[in-house]
Amino acid sequence: MPRSSKPAAAATREAIVERTAALASIEGLAPLSIGHLADVLGLSKSGVIGPFRSKENLQVAAVESAIARFRCEVWEPVAPEPAGLARLRAIMNAWLSYLEREVFPGGCFLTAVSLEFDDRPGAVRERLAVAWKRWLTVIEGEVSTAQAQGELDRELDPAQVAFQLNAYVMAANWAKQLFADPRALGAARDAIDRLLAPAKAR
Amino acid sequence: MPRSSKPAAAATREAIVERTAALASIEGLAPLSIGHLADVLGLSKSGVIGPFRSKENLQVAAVESAIARFRCEVWEPVAPEPAGLARLRAIMNAWLSYLEREVFPGGCFLTAVSLEFDDRPGAVRERLAVAWKRWLTVIEGEVSTAQAQGELDRELDPAQVAFQLNAYVMAANWAKQLFADPRALGAARDAIDRLLAPAKAR
Repeated sequence: MPRSSKPAAAATREAIVERTAALASIEGLAPLSIGHLADVLGLSKSGVIGPFRSKENLQVAAVESAIARFRCEVWEPVAPEPAGLARLRAIMNAWLSYLEREVFPGGCFLTAVSLEFDDRPGAVRERLAVAWKRWLTVIEGEVSTAQAQGELDRELDPAQVAFQLNAYVMAANWAKQLFADPRALGAARDAIDRLLAPAKAR
Repeated sequence: MPRSSKPAAAATREAIVERTAALASIEGLAPLSIGHLADVLGLSKSGVIGPFRSKENLQVAAVESAIARFRCEVWEPVAPEPAGLARLRAIMNAWLSYLEREVFPGGCFLTAVSLEFDDRPGAVRERLAVAWKRWLTVIEGEVSTAQAQGELDRELDPAQVAFQLNAYVMAANWAKQLFADPRALGAARDAIDRLLAPAKAR
């Protein structure tokens, strides 16, 4: 077989990574077989693993790709908003919209895989733990800024608020997927609106 | 091989189901291999599957056993409490304690498996969806009773309260497992206390 050109190899690698993340959001990352991926992609098994050298490297690449996708869907559109309550609200809307639009067909890939790998030490778990911690820190930072600007009650604990906001999105994702009930997103939205009610309105 | 006696067969069946639920809380239910279970239990592969006739039946039995365990750990100790706010608070304490005591070594089996199977139509998913819906309905019922007794604000929507209470426990389970941070349970406890503050104290 002739060696493929560099751009073609990069495109194949990207196609493998994207399909892995999409299928893993439905079937789980650990049980996803290379044989199944090979069938779906029309490649041989070694054609799937080759560019990554190991199954774990492919899994990490799928996680990296999902993190980049999340960043692109949820963070980048709202980054230009003014820091504080405005950006925090925009983040929460973008995050729910990412679930609503089913960016990953099987619900939030990053939530499912973090629960799947939380007891499997290794590169996948580490990468996810770092990314999630960083994301919670971003939320916490917006809460602190909103407090400093007098937009949210100063007595709230930013880490606690971040915990609760994440909890609402996580439960909405779970209920939407398990009960196939899109109203779950409405429940999350109500809880978020209540928690982020402006300081004056309380 | 001689046929084992009925009580011995029942004991073997129970051992297989319990070990399946415990291992699946760590490794996931879908990727758990019968070969691995057979090794751990000191049985042949057909000795593991035999009593259930199919892998799916074994998975359903593991889910049933986990539901029974949850009921026994979380519901039964609090059932004698007076209905309403007292029992609702007792439920939430028992639920967090079930996570704290690591009844399942890999975190809440019923949460992990419901996310794992939410896109896999079949008996496991159906059983989980029914059990979770029923549990949310129990919580909702306690909220309504508490409202009727003047213990919680009547303007709260019971389904919304149940959504939020579940969200706090789910996020605590997730954070405890992913970050190995037991303080996550404290954040859930604070959020629950705030949401269930008595009507008069508001």
